[in-house]
Formats: sequence, structure tokens, C-alpha cells
Amino acid sequence: MNPSILESLLKSVQTGSTSIANALEQLRTLPYEDLGFAKLDHHRTLRHGSPEVILCEGKTEKQIVTLTRGLLKHKQPVLATRADPSVARALKRVSRKAVYHQSARVVVIQPSAPNPLQGDIVIVTAGTADIPVAEEAKVTAMTMGSAVETIFDVGVAGVHRLFDQVDRLQRARVVIVVAGMDGVLPSVVGGLVQTPLIAVPTSRGYGAHFGGLAPLLTMLNTCSGGIGVVNIDNGFGAGHLAHRINALVDRP
Amino acid sequence: MNPSILESLLKSVQTGSTSIANALEQLRTLPYEDLGFAKLDHHRTLRHGSPEVILCEGKTEKQIVTLTRGLLKHKQPVLATRADPSVARALKRVSRKAVYHQSARVVVIQPSAPNPLQGDIVIVTAGTADIPVAEEAKVTAMTMGSAVETIFDVGVAGVHRLFDQVDRLQRARVVIVVAGMDGVLPSVVGGLVQTPLIAVPTSRGYGAHFGGLAPLLTMLNTCSGGIGVVNIDNGFGAGHLAHRINALVDRP
Amino acid sequence: MNPSILESLLKSVQTGSTSIANALEQLRTLPYEDLGFAKLDHHRTLRHGSPEVILCEGKTEKQIVTLTRGLLKHKQPVLATRADPSVARALKRVSRKAVYHQSARVVVIQPSAPNPLQGDIVIVTAGTADIPVAEEAKVTAMTMGSAVETIFDVGVAGVHRLFDQVDRLQRARVVIVVAGMDGVLPSVVGGLVQTPLIAVPTSRGYGAHFGGLAPLLTMLNTCSGGIGVVNIDNGFGAGHLAHRINALVDRP
Amino acid sequence: MNPSILESLLKSVQTGSTSIANALEQLRTLPYEDLGFAKLDHHRTLRHGSPEVILCEGKTEKQIVTLTRGLLKHKQPVLATRADPSVARALKRVSRKAVYHQSARVVVIQPSAPNPLQGDIVIVTAGTADIPVAEEAKVTAMTMGSAVETIFDVGVAGVHRLFDQVDRLQRARVVIVVAGMDGVLPSVVGGLVQTPLIAVPTSRGYGAHFGGLAPLLTMLNTCSGGIGVVNIDNGFGAGHLAHRINALVDRP
Amino acid sequence: MNPSILESLLKSVQTGSTSIANALEQLRTLPYEDLGFAKLDHHRTLRHGSPEVILCEGKTEKQIVTLTRGLLKHKQPVLATRADPSVARALKRVSRKAVYHQSARVVVIQPSAPNPLQGDIVIVTAGTADIPVAEEAKVTAMTMGSAVETIFDVGVAGVHRLFDQVDRLQRARVVIVVAGMDGVLPSVVGGLVQTPLIAVPTSRGYGAHFGGLAPLLTMLNTCSGGIGVVNIDNGFGAGHLAHRINALVDRP
Amino acid sequence: MNPSILESLLKSVQTGSTSIANALEQLRTLPYEDLGFAKLDHHRTLRHGSPEVILCEGKTEKQIVTLTRGLLKHKQPVLATRADPSVARALKRVSRKAVYHQSARVVVIQPSAPNPLQGDIVIVTAGTADIPVAEEAKVTAMTMGSAVETIFDVGVAGVHRLFDQVDRLQRARVVIVVAGMDGVLPSVVGGLVQTPLIAVPTSRGYGAHFGGLAPLLTMLNTCSGGIGVVNIDNGFGAGHLAHRINALVDRP
Amino acid sequence: MNPSILESLLKSVQTGSTSIANALEQLRTLPYEDLGFAKLDHHRTLRHGSPEVILCEGKTEKQIVTLTRGLLKHKQPVLATRADPSVARALKRVSRKAVYHQSARVVVIQPSAPNPLQGDIVIVTAGTADIPVAEEAKVTAMTMGSAVETIFDVGVAGVHRLFDQVDRLQRARVVIVVAGMDGVLPSVVGGLVQTPLIAVPTSRGYGAHFGGLAPLLTMLNTCSGGIGVVNIDNGFGAGHLAHRINALVDRP
Amino acid sequence: MNPSILESLLKSVQTGSTSIANALEQLRTLPYEDLGFAKLDHHRTLRHGSPEVILCEGKTEKQIVTLTRGLLKHKQPVLATRADPSVARALKRVSRKAVYHQSARVVVIQPSAPNPLQGDIVIVTAGTADIPVAEEAKVTAMTMGSAVETIFDVGVAGVHRLFDQVDRLQRARVVIVVAGMDGVLPSVVGGLVQTPLIAVPTSRGYGAHFGGLAPLLTMLNTCSGGIGVVNIDNGFGAGHLAHRINALVDRP
Repeated sequence: MNPSILESLLKSVQTGSTSIANALEQLRTLPYEDLGFAKLDHHRTLRHGSPEVILCEGKTEKQIVTLTRGLLKHKQPVLATRADPSVARALKRVSRKAVYHQSARVVVIQPSAPNPLQGDIVIVTAGTADIPVAEEAKVTAMTMGSAVETIFDVGVAGVHRLFDQVDRLQRARVVIVVAGMDGVLPSVVGGLVQTPLIAVPTSRGYGAHFGGLAPLLTMLNTCSGGIGVVNIDNGFGAGHLAHRINALVDRP
Repeated sequence: MNPSILESLLKSVQTGSTSIANALEQLRTLPYEDLGFAKLDHHRTLRHGSPEVILCEGKTEKQIVTLTRGLLKHKQPVLATRADPSVARALKRVSRKAVYHQSARVVVIQPSAPNPLQGDIVIVTAGTADIPVAEEAKVTAMTMGSAVETIFDVGVAGVHRLFDQVDRLQRARVVIVVAGMDGVLPSVVGGLVQTPLIAVPTSRGYGAHFGGLAPLLTMLNTCSGGIGVVNIDNGFGAGHLAHRINALVDRP
Repeated sequence: MNPSILESLLKSVQTGSTSIANALEQLRTLPYEDLGFAKLDHHRTLRHGSPEVILCEGKTEKQIVTLTRGLLKHKQPVLATRADPSVARALKRVSRKAVYHQSARVVVIQPSAPNPLQGDIVIVTAGTADIPVAEEAKVTAMTMGSAVETIFDVGVAGVHRLFDQVDRLQRARVVIVVAGMDGVLPSVVGGLVQTPLIAVPTSRGYGAHFGGLAPLLTMLNTCSGGIGVVNIDNGFGAGHLAHRINALVDRP
Repeated sequence: MNPSILESLLKSVQTGSTSIANALEQLRTLPYEDLGFAKLDHHRTLRHGSPEVILCEGKTEKQIVTLTRGLLKHKQPVLATRADPSVARALKRVSRKAVYHQSARVVVIQPSAPNPLQGDIVIVTAGTADIPVAEEAKVTAMTMGSAVETIFDVGVAGVHRLFDQVDRLQRARVVIVVAGMDGVLPSVVGGLVQTPLIAVPTSRGYGAHFGGLAPLLTMLNTCSGGIGVVNIDNGFGAGHLAHRINALVDRP
Repeated sequence: MNPSILESLLKSVQTGSTSIANALEQLRTLPYEDLGFAKLDHHRTLRHGSPEVILCEGKTEKQIVTLTRGLLKHKQPVLATRADPSVARALKRVSRKAVYHQSARVVVIQPSAPNPLQGDIVIVTAGTADIPVAEEAKVTAMTMGSAVETIFDVGVAGVHRLFDQVDRLQRARVVIVVAGMDGVLPSVVGGLVQTPLIAVPTSRGYGAHFGGLAPLLTMLNTCSGGIGVVNIDNGFGAGHLAHRINALVDRP
Repeated sequence: MNPSILESLLKSVQTGSTSIANALEQLRTLPYEDLGFAKLDHHRTLRHGSPEVILCEGKTEKQIVTLTRGLLKHKQPVLATRADPSVARALKRVSRKAVYHQSARVVVIQPSAPNPLQGDIVIVTAGTADIPVAEEAKVTAMTMGSAVETIFDVGVAGVHRLFDQVDRLQRARVVIVVAGMDGVLPSVVGGLVQTPLIAVPTSRGYGAHFGGLAPLLTMLNTCSGGIGVVNIDNGFGAGHLAHRINALVDRP
Repeated sequence: MNPSILESLLKSVQTGSTSIANALEQLRTLPYEDLGFAKLDHHRTLRHGSPEVILCEGKTEKQIVTLTRGLLKHKQPVLATRADPSVARALKRVSRKAVYHQSARVVVIQPSAPNPLQGDIVIVTAGTADIPVAEEAKVTAMTMGSAVETIFDVGVAGVHRLFDQVDRLQRARVVIVVAGMDGVLPSVVGGLVQTPLIAVPTSRGYGAHFGGLAPLLTMLNTCSGGIGVVNIDNGFGAGHLAHRINALVDRP
Repeated sequence: MNPSILESLLKSVQTGSTSIANALEQLRTLPYEDLGFAKLDHHRTLRHGSPEVILCEGKTEKQIVTLTRGLLKHKQPVLATRADPSVARALKRVSRKAVYHQSARVVVIQPSAPNPLQGDIVIVTAGTADIPVAEEAKVTAMTMGSAVETIFDVGVAGVHRLFDQVDRLQRARVVIVVAGMDGVLPSVVGGLVQTPLIAVPTSRGYGAHFGGLAPLLTMLNTCSGGIGVVNIDNGFGAGHLAHRINALVDRP
């Protein structure tokens, strides 16, 4: 319901030209969602600086450009994930502020920097090939205002590399662990630290890996407590959740 | 929002004790869901006679009784599915009007009969063992007000039994086909009739049947157009959808 | 059996040149399917205007052209689904009336317009990437004679967008909900409206989406009653079923 | 064991230069597999005319040529399945007798025609897109010596097309039914005929078809008795089994 | 259509009391399936002696008894599979001729012995635990008129036990191989004999056996040609198909 | 390495009875894990009050009692999950402080209450049958020191029930959403609140639910950001992660 | 071939009553498997002491007793796995030497102790509930002659417990790692030791564990090299393979 | 911990400038993994000659080159698996010693030859298309120091080819069996030999092969004891495990 319509209704009640019973009836059948939701949505962006997200996969370049233009018109930041170089070029033509994170395949357009948070997030990967997913998580969380540090290639085949990092991990507010293949790294990290841990299985692997099913099941069945799992290759989801947790601490 | 609260607000606008700006603010932040939803819900039951449904599986007998008592207090009809004999006995102690359809495993309590619809629904089963699922569909649709006829055991292994029924099927407003094993019956029926058809896979079968997965996939991949599929053994869902379609025709 | 052959047989019975016993034998061994089926088929097309459908995937261009020519020779309308631009060009060479719906990947050739129905179908999509499947449903139902309206991008991540549309959905005779990713939209819509609802999972998604298995299972397990599910990406099947239901209401 | 070695041993027993106990010991430790197997293999080809089969998928062109040359050197017929046009060209360079069945993707090289059998095999397909698999079965069985007839496109969506063929099917020694999508055709045919029936699921389909899993499960769960199933798209296996059954009847 | 009704119609054409046009109309709308199908069905039983089959699983004891009574009234033989001892006792009360094959879990009631066939079927099992499935196949084929011999426990872990049987297998008209666990036996037998071979996976196994999925996949992917597969534990289906093949040879 | 052993070594270096090179060698080969880990573990329990967890499923009653006695000897709290009434009775015999939460199937033994945290966790369930899993999460988090509130039965079939709770959810530090069937509730809640959200699929459902696979996939594929998923029925894991996040805010 | 038959043949060659050509023919068609296999089999047992194995699951008690009696008559040791207490009692009645390992569910009957090997096998379990599988492996390997040591409950949730054991593991000839739940332990152990490692997934777990599928996939996808995997819960297979490797070292 | 730092600490204890209590504290908090792990790692390479492995799939060419340069700087051998020709060319530019095994898709760079072992490994393949996986296993084991022999194309369809090789297999220290399609070869070989056996399923196959799932399940469910399975197409893992076993025998 448009506020001006509501205002008119109230005025006509005030002046007596609409009876209370009649106004009651009109209010009862108002599309309720116009009352508060849009405002709530607006507040959300202002308060958290979390940008609207465009998952580019499955959309035409034209659709992506239109969506981006719409967001920019309302001064909203843009986070376009799964963007190939061609999409990135198109968005750079839309806005000079567009930055393409190639390994993460993410385009970011931020009219203004988000308020930085005090704590930080550490992202750990098991292998080199998991880095793109970790980068997607990193760009997501940083665009939302979190500080992020990455530690790559500390898989359990050489578990001592991980142990060097335990103190660093323990100091983070949130730890994201990205792993393909057997996906065992989150279980091991979960046995070492007390921070909330987000596990991200990746599609890196072959054979009985089934496109990431293997590490996904490993992580869901972990014996180490305190681990939340996101979808295979879902760096964005991990970065988003990590930021939510990080933002929680600074919430007034 | 309680209507009386809303009425008070409007009155205070009328008398001038609340300014329009202030009333606008209060309305904007009202819990929207209190405005219309409950009323809508109320209307729904009155208009369609569709009872609230209690899926007994996974609930304690005590919970089922409490839910039933709550519904009856508001004069609402009750449809309790997947009810074993012990639950049925308990509900009969709650209300004398409780009727237990044993094969369907459904308890129905109807304070008053629903308005009968003119058209009817025909339910076909491939085998004898599919009958309980068909009965669940039948009781569901009848309790909601539809007339239902059943034709059992016309599987394609003796396809001529089916052909005798084509005219009967064609005259129905909706046809429900219930089949376990290979689940091919809906495809064959769908090639013979023009009525909307609802396919229900059942868990009847063994081996590579995987609890109903085989007929479910058969039905989803049917080459015959105009078929909607519901969950394995979901007689209730099929009966509900069939009634919705049947009711549509009589909608003023 | 050709009616003229049957006529000759009856005449020779009438004139006595064929004995009753002999005629009985001939009738008993007639290919029964020639008696009524072909005629029934013929009636079907005339009555409903539902075109023969060619699923182009898996067929050679040459096969598609031959099938189309055969249908046109009998003045039947053509609906060629999953048609890529090259197939579309080939069919335009076959008939000037061929229209290519690019997003839907459907070619339609209609010698004459179907009788329009009074009620209408509303198709809702959860995301932008679900639009092609929705368009396939739309073109299918419209070619058969239904009026169709589409509402795109009302996924539950911003659930207020959906609530604005509840009245519109409630007025439709049938609602089709198309959703990839988690496929939750049909469950939410099903809780809001009383019209028959057809749910179409799409292959849009990644990771543990498994090519549409995830939203398919979501829809089959919905707690909201009255929902029929079709195969992943099966816009045609949804459009066909929706039209069958819509046509039911106008059936004399 | 080389026959000449065995002959020497027997001679030395005959002449007394080897004692019976010693000969017994030598025979006992002979590599048994050299006694009879190779001869058996040789007999097999001569008696049945069944060619050695080369599954081209997964082999290099060079390997395929080498295998073919080896077979031809021993005057053995060649049946190369899953052969793309490039392989076909290479084999035509190896032998002028090479014939490429393009739709079946099979290359046949037969030094001499096999003894023809008296009965025949009928191959039925549900749809146009199943034809390549049916052709693979046909070429296989014909190359082995069976007569084969094909009936295409008699899916159950227009079930009367099938009923016209019941007598023809009943006269065949073996019926092969090839079907993708929902795979219901073998169940329907199995309810109509008494001949041994071989069902071949194909990968034709989409969505919850899962590359042929859907029709495979349908066929394995058929309610119609007397049906044997082969792997998805395995036209070769079906043709081979059909020929074995056909050959059985003419076995002296 | 009842023949006497047809006769009356023809007579009234002969006498002129029904016009040809009117008779034509009546014939056109006759339920075609009454013309030939029932007769065909009747012939089928007389000619082959194949009994009607009752799959007891999923049926109530009362339903099984009713079905049995119905068959016996028409002098038809009965084959009730998956019958537990309680069902067997009930059927023995229905007919003194009822025989319970306990390991096979099959009840047979045969008013008269079927015509014996000349060739025979050999059934091989990999392990002791596969015997019940083999027995179901044996009872099925024998009840239909085939001679059957069984060879138990010749799994490949001691492959020499199998080789002793090659000649015996080669002499059979059909070989059925029943195997659980890894299901490799049909592949090995298929490399040794030239007879048609039916492979039956069983649910015997544990862990990654998944209720018989493992041997089912093994058998479907066999490199040995000429093998047809039936559902997991489907001894009935294997016996039925084997008998069909066996009967084919003796077909006049 | 026992500290006293290390002390002796250092003393002998100090006194010169061990050379530096020799001490270096001894230190290099020390079992490193004895240096710090055990102490770390000890600290962990003291600082966070998180009890050692015993998953009772798969353990004998005797083993559970022994493990419990061991923990109590070191004054550690005990959280025994998946404990049936018989186990509960056994543990009550071990300690009077044992409390059995029957619906949650958890036994808790806490020598002293944990330090309470300021923020709280809200647990929401879609249906009545999801309550036991929610209770496991609740008992887990409360035993660790978090305040927990539960809101039961707010599934999307009656979505207005959920909207009444949005403000309450928004005020929580962490929201846990427990849902079986289609598992859509977390997606809807995730679109309404900004707090970190943990989704728990349950095994409640039937048919194509596959023991919780359906809601698990729904939750992993959610379009709503900021959601971490735990294993099916893993109330403990959800409660543990929620507490970790809650504890993070109060971390000095 | 019976040796006495072979002897007669050779004698008739010696005496000249059978020609060499004729003897050659007879030998060529001898069932080769009777020549050497049985002897080979006999040798095998004598040399390695590996007993014949009876998998009791799926066999009747009567069958198990008969098989056991047969083995004992030939002085062969017996290893009966998956034996419930009732089977154990039956075998104790067969032989006083029968020993029942209850946790392992294995009955062993050894006429004489096997030759002990010098090296040993270490079996590690992740959790308490994995012990029965580990015990099956232990009893198997010990019955065959290997020395075995077990280390229970060193899962990665408390990874320091594992590190205390690295030296012990490194000294073993073979390490078996048994783990349910997430199955990560073999990956971690594989990164620490250089000995051959056998991984055994167990069915311990719930939810997305799918009866052991989760740890099975984890182990197959391990990044740590040098790991062989056996079937879920297959302690026997692991013990057998470990013994084969251990025996290899002592092979002369 | 750097040894020089440790030396300084010990010196300051010796000289008295650090108290024992203080030194104890410093040692206790040392990063334990620096004490022994690196040295262990170093030893490992020197002793076994096992090279660091780079799985090229999923890594950029630039990353592979950087990793290779790092290894060569420390004089370590390099084994780069799943290397396409372009990667091979890049590594040849890095080192003249780089050798590309094209069929195996492996690049090896060995500064010096490993110590050869005395025993050997035999690798058997079922079909020609399995050769690349066998070659990966071969190159892996040979690079580590094992002698390897290969026997290709001895599938069970012609089982006599295998029996010719039994003695050869029996003499090997380890046998690797590589098989796609139905994957039955390891079961057959396992029944013939007593050596440790490693089974490798391959992705060669089609239809219900599901990318190697079929032979994987076959191998895991084998009835033949003493078989360890590795991931689909994991030639590297099989070669690595075979070498570990082979090296065990020569271990002093």
C-alpha cells in the first residue's frame, strides 16, 4: 500500500467522510506486504552494507546488465558471482567502479566502502585447486565489510603445515575451510579450534568424488562439533554466513 | 493485528487524539500478518469445507489428540492420515463422529457434511497392493466434497481390462492413477483420455524398485502429456489436488 | 478397419452373400484398433485444438522436417519443443506460418487459431534463469487455446514480492510455479492459494543440485496440499496439464 | 600346453622312456588352459559365425586398426561398435569389405556371409530418437546370421499403433523393445505377446531421466513376465542375446 | 463384446430390422477389447499352461485367498510367489492340491500337469544364500512345463568348481545364473557358454551392496555378450523368461 | 612428554651432565603431542564449559557407563545423546545429578552450572514431529551455557504463523531452523532475518524423502544467503555451532 | 579328471592299446580343472594356514553346520563370520575347539595353530562403535597366523591421541584403520606413516551417512597415497589383505 | 622450531642465564610441529625416493610450474599426474630431465634414479581402454623404485587368456588389476593367486556404468579375499600402495 493512499484514508476518517467500519474493512484487505517490507529491505542494505547478489550462471548478459543498472540507480552495491570475463567486461562498461576478481569470478561495484568490522575471518584451503572457491568467499565477505585472511594448501597429507596455523585460526572470529577430494580438512580443523567453522566442499576431484558429493558427505558426517556446511563450491554462501557471524559481534 | 486494536486506533484518529502521521507510523509497523491472514484462513475452511490435516506419522498419540481437540473446538473438520488402529481408537474416544477408514489408514471427523460437487473423480490402481494408497486419496477427496469412484487392478499386464474403462475414465473430471512396480499405468491411461491426470507412485515392489523410486521416475518421464505427479504413497496429496481441480469447475 | 470395408461386410450380410457365422468370424479377427482409435484421435485434435508435439532433442533435422510435413498435410497444428535456431530456420522454410519462440525454444505452426478459453493460467518463476522453462509452458498452453500471464522473479529470498501477487494468483484457474535452486516457491505459493498448482523443477543450480534433483525432491515432499509435479525442465508438460484443467471448466 | 609337447610326452610313455608315474606328474602340473580353450574358441566362430567385437569407445584409432588387422589375418569377421565416421574411414582403408552403418555407428567386415537362420527377430522402438540403438541391435544380429525386421515409433502415447503390430510380434522368435523416456513400452508389449522379449533402455530423455536410469528401472520392475533387460543403449547386447535365442531353435 | 450380442446385431442386419448405417455406428463404438483379447488370453493359458501369478507381498491373506478361488473356479493353475508359511497354510485350506515350496516361498496349485518340454534349463548359483531365489526360478519354470536342473555354489572364488560344469551348461537350452555379493558369475559363465543366459542379482550382501544394486550393475555392464538381466531377487521373472525361450524351440 | 622428564633433561644440561648436542637430539625426537595438547584440552573444558559428548548409538550400555565414570572422575560434565530410556536409567545409577531429557533423548550430568551467556538462541521447527531434534539442539546449547527459546510448528503451509515471529527471530543472536518433509522453512526464514542461521534437516517424511535427503538438498541449495547446514537429525551439531557463535560475542 | 582314469589312459598308451593320436584327443578334451586345481587348493591351505571362510549371514543354521562338518572332516580350519550367538552355540556342539569371539561375531575352529609370522599388524579405530569391525579383522588375521595389536578410539576430534601412536604405527608391517561417521582417520594416518594402509569404512553413523556410503567415499577420495579400501564393515577382508601383505615379507 | 633457536635456549640453560622453569615454559609452548615433522618429511624422501606428487587437474599451468620449480630447488623428484601435453611442454621448459609418459599422462623429473627394489609388481588390465590407468600406476611405482610388468587385455570374456598368466601373477609381490565395464577381473584373479591384490575400477563403460560406479561396487563386494580397492581411475594410488607393499619386503 502506497503511504499516500494510506494517508488519504486516514484523513477521510479524521474528517468523518469514511466510517470506522469502512476504514477497517479497507485496511483489512490492504496488500499487507506493502506496509513494511520494502522499508525493511531498505534498512537492511543501509545498516549492513550487504549488496544485492546476482548469480550470473543461467542468466543472459543482457539480463545481468539490466539488473546491475537497476541496482546502481538506487545506489545499491552490486556483487555478481560466477561471472565470466565477458560478463565482467560488460559490467565495466556499465560502471567504472566495477572490479573483476578473476580467480573468484566475481564482479564488485561499490558506490562507497562498507563500514569495516573489527574481527576477522580466516579462510583455509586444502589444496591449490580449491582457491577459486575460497576467493569467492573472500570477495563476498570483504565486500560486506569483513576483514579476511587466507591460508592456502594445508591439506592433511602434510598435517604439520596445518598445526603451524592453529594459533592464527584460534584468533579469528570465524574460520572457513574449503576442501575438495576427501574433504577431511574441516574435521581436523574442527578438532583444533573453538571458533565457529564453516565447511565448503568443492567439486575438485574425480572418480567416486561425484562432483563434490564425497567431501559434502564427509563434512556433514563430521565428528567434530560446531561445523556448518554450505553447498558444493558455494564460496558466496560461506562468505555471507561468515560475515553475518562476524557482524553479530559488533552489533550494538 | 487484532481488529479491536485497529478499531481503537481509527477511533483515536477520528477523535483527533492521534495525528495522521502518528497513525501512519503505527500502521506501517503493524505485524502485517495479523491483518488478513487469519481471516483468509477462516474463509478458506468455510468456503471449501477442506478439513485441517494431521499427518499422524512421527507424532505421539498425545499430540494427535491435542491437535484434534483444538480443531473440534473451532468446529473444524479433521482428517488424520497414516493413523494406525491405536490412534483411531484414541480419536473415537475424543469424538463419536470419528470414522476410521482402515485400509486407507485415515480417521475423519466431520461436524457437518461438505457441499457435494457435481462432477466426479475416478481412481484407478494397477494392482491389488496399491489399494490402500487409492483409498487414502478417495477418503481425502470425499471428505472435501467430491464424488469418487474406484477401479482396481487394471495393470498393463492384462491391458484389455483397462480398455473396457476408457469411456468411464473420459467422463470423469479428474483421473487419479495409482501404481507401484514399474509404474507404467499412468503413461498408458494418459494416452487414452483427455482429462487431467494425477499419477501416484507407490512403494509396492522390491529389488531395483528402491521404495518407489522406480515408478516415480517412470511417471515423471512419461511421454503422455497432461500428467501431474505426487510423492510416493501420497494418496492424500492426489486426493487433495483432484478435489481442487474438481471444485474449480463448480466455482461460481 | 476402414469403415468402407466394414460397410461392405454388413451389406453382404444384408444381401445374404455372407453368412452370420462367417461375418462373426471376420469381425472377431478384425484389427480392433482400426475401429475406433483413429477416429478418436481425429476427434481429439478437432475438439481441443491440441497440436501434435515433436520433441526435437535426439531427432535429426531431417526427421523433424519430415514429421512436420506429415502433420501439415493433415492440416494439424505443430508444436516443436527444444528446437534450436537451426531447426527453427528449417521449419520456417517448410511453412511461412512457423513462429519461433526463442527463449522457450519452441516452434509453433498453427493453420488456424484455437478456440480461446475464458479462464486463464498464471505462471510464476522463482528466478530469472527459470524463464525459458516458464516460456515453454506458456507457449504450449497458449497454442492449445489458454490465456496465460507470467510473473517472473518472485523467489522467497524476497518473499514480499510474492505476497503482492496473491490476489492475482487466486483469480487464476491454474497456477504453474517454476523454480530451480532449492525449489521452495511452490510450497510457499501452495500455502497461499486454493487453485490447482503445478510445480516445475528446473536444472538451474549447481553443486548438490544434481541437475534439478534437489528442487524435484523439495516439490514432491511439499507440505502444502494440492500440488502436482512434472519432470525437471518440463515446461511443455506443465503447460499441457494446466490447459487440460483450464479446458475442463469450459467443457460443455 | 602345446600339442607337440603333449605328443612327445605320450611317445616317451609309449617307448617306456618315461614312467607312468612321472607322466602323471607332468600332466598334473601342465598349464591346463592350453589344452582346450583356444580350440573351443576357434570352433565357436566357425559354428556360429559370431564375429569378434571391438567396442571403439575408449580405444585409439590406431588400436582399433591393429585389432581389426589381427582379426582379418585369421579370416575372422569384425564388428566394430560405437565407431564414429573417422574410425569408419580408417577401417575402410584396412579392408574394402568394410561397411559402415552410420545410424548404428557400427562397422562390419565379413569375409563371407553367415549361415542364415529360419526364424526372425523383430525390433520395436518407442520413439524416433531410439532408432540408433535399435539399428545397433539390428546390425549385430544380422551380422551373426539372424533375419531382423524393425517397427519404429509405436510408443504408448498412441497405443493403437502398437496393437496393429501384435500379430507380427507374435510370429517373431524374439522381440527386442527399445525405449527411452519413461521406458514403458516393454511392459505393454510383454502383456500382449508370448515370445521371449529383450528390453533396451536408452539415454534419450532429460531431467529426472538421469541418462537412462529411469527407463532402466521401469524395465527391471516390469509386471509383465518373460522380459530380460540389457544395459542402457546396449543395442549390441540385445542383438547378441536375441541371436543366441534365435540360433537355439535351429540348433541340431 | 459378447459374441452373442454381436450375433444378434448381425441377424437384425440380415433381417433388415437394423440398417447398415446404424449397425456401422454400433460396431464403431463397441468396446474393441472384448472382441479378441479375452479369447487370446484364454488361448494363452490353454496352449502354454502358464499359470496366473499372484505376488503375495503387499496383499492381505484374504485377498490372496479370493484371487486363488477365482482362478480355480476357471480351472486355471495358480502360482503364488513370496508366500510366507501362513499364506501357504491358508491356500492349502483352499485346495488339497496346493504344494508349498518353502525355500522358494512359492505355492503351486495345478489342476493338471503341463505338457513337458524336451530341452532343459540349468540354474547356477554363486553362493549358498542365493538358493532361495534359484528355487523360485526353478518352481516357476517347472510349473510352466520346463525341466530344470540346479548347480549350487560355484562362485568364482573357487573358479575350478565352475569349469567342471561347462559341458553341462553348454548342453542346456537356457542357463540362469543367480548371484549376490559382487555378481561376477554371469560374466564368467557368459565367457564360457553359447546358450542364452539370464542373470539374476540377489540382495545377498552387505555394505556397498545396497540391497542388490552392486550385482545388478555388474550384470548390466557385463563384457560377455548374450546376457539378459532381471530385477534383484526376481527368480520368478528369470524362470518365466527361461521357459519362454525353452518353449520357443518346441513351438510347432 | 611428561614435564618431569623434560625438567630432568634441562637439569642435566644445566649441570653439564648432558651436552647440548645430545639434549638437542633428545628434544627433536620427543613425542611432540605430549607437550601441549593435553593442557590445551584441559583449558578448553574449563574455559567454555563444553562437556565431552557421548553418542550412545552403536555403543554398549557398559561402554557408555565406563566412559561416563571416566569423565566424572575428572569432574567433567557429560552430555550423552541418542540415549534410550534404558541407558538413562543406567546413568542415573552412576550419578544422582543425571537428568534425562526424554523427547531429546539426552542425558546431562553437570557437576556445576556453566557461565550463562547474555545473548540467546531461538530454535524454530516446521512441524510437530521435528520437535525431538529441536530438543536435542536445545539441551546441547543450554548445557554449554546458552539461553534457548523454542518456537514450534511454524511451517510454510500456514506462513502467517511464521511472520508473527519475525521480530523475535531478528532479536536472537543465532536462529536454528529444524525441518523435515520438503525442508523449505530455512529458505523462508533466511529471507526474513539477518542473524546467522543454522538449518537442520530431519528424517521426518516418507516416499521420495529418502530418510532426510530431500530436506538436506533443499537446505544446501537455498537461495537465501547466510545459512549453514548440519547433518540430518543432528540437533547436537546445530546446538553446538549455535553456542559457539553465541559464545563468540561474549568472548573478551 | 580322476588320477586313476589318467593312469589307465597312460597305461594303455604304454601297452599300445591306445594310439598317441587317440590319447592326445582324449587329453585335449579332459576337464582340465580336475588336473591341478584341487591340489593347488590343498597346497594353499597347508602353506598359509588360511582357513576356509563361512559368511553366516543369509545361510540357515543347518547349512552352516553342514559346511563346518565338511571342512573339519578334511582337517581344515574354520572361520565363520557374522555368526550370531545361536550359530556359535550350534558350532560349539559340532566341535569342542570352537571359540566364539562375541564382539567380532566370529567363530574359529583351528585343529592346529598356524605358523606365526614375525611382523605385526596394527588396527586403529576412530570410535568405540567401530570396535566390532576391528575385532573381525583382528580375529581373521590372527587365525591366519599374524600377530595383531589394536588401538581404539583415536578419532581426529582429539587428534593428539593419534600422534602419540605414530611411532607404534610406523613399526607395524601393515596398518588397518577402521572408521565410521566421516571416515577421515585413514587420510590423517596416511599422511603420518609410510606402511601399507588398509581403510575400512563402517556403517556407524546416521543421516547423510547412508549406511557407510559417506566414510566409504571419503576413503576412496583420500589425498594421502598408499591406501587400499575394502567394503563397509568388511573387517574380514581387511584382516585377510593385511595378512597377505604380512605373509609376503616372510615368504622365502 | 628452528634447531638453532633450540640450541640457543639450551646454551642459556647451560650457562644459567635461563632458569629451568623458564626453559620448561618456553619448550611447552613451542610450535611442536617444527621439532620433528619437517625432519621426518625430509627423511622420507631420502629413504624411499618417493617424489612429491602434483595432481595437475584443477591447477593452472602457472601454478604447476611454480610448484615444480620449488621441488627442484630442494633437489626433490617430481611426479605430475593428469598432465596434458601442454603442461608437459611447460615442464620440459623447466627441466631437461622431464619425461612425459603420454598414455599415462604423467610427467616425471628425477634428479637421480631411486634405489631399485628386488621384487616386482604385475599390472593386469581387463581391456585395451584401461591401459592409460594402468600406465599411470606403472610410472608411479617405477618412479618410486619398483620394477613393474604389465599384462594387457585379459578380461574374463576370454578367461583362458588369464589362466596362462597365473604363474606369472603368483610370482609377483603385488598384483594390480585394472578394469572398467563390469569390473569382474579382480574377483577372478583374487580366486587364483595368493599375493596382495589392488583393484582399480576405471571410468571406461557406458549406460548403467555411471562413470565407474559399477566396477567400483563390484570390486568392493568381491567374494575373493585379500583385495584392496582404490578410487576410480586412480592409477597413481594403486601404484603408490603397490610400491609401499613392495618396499616393505626389502625394509631392513
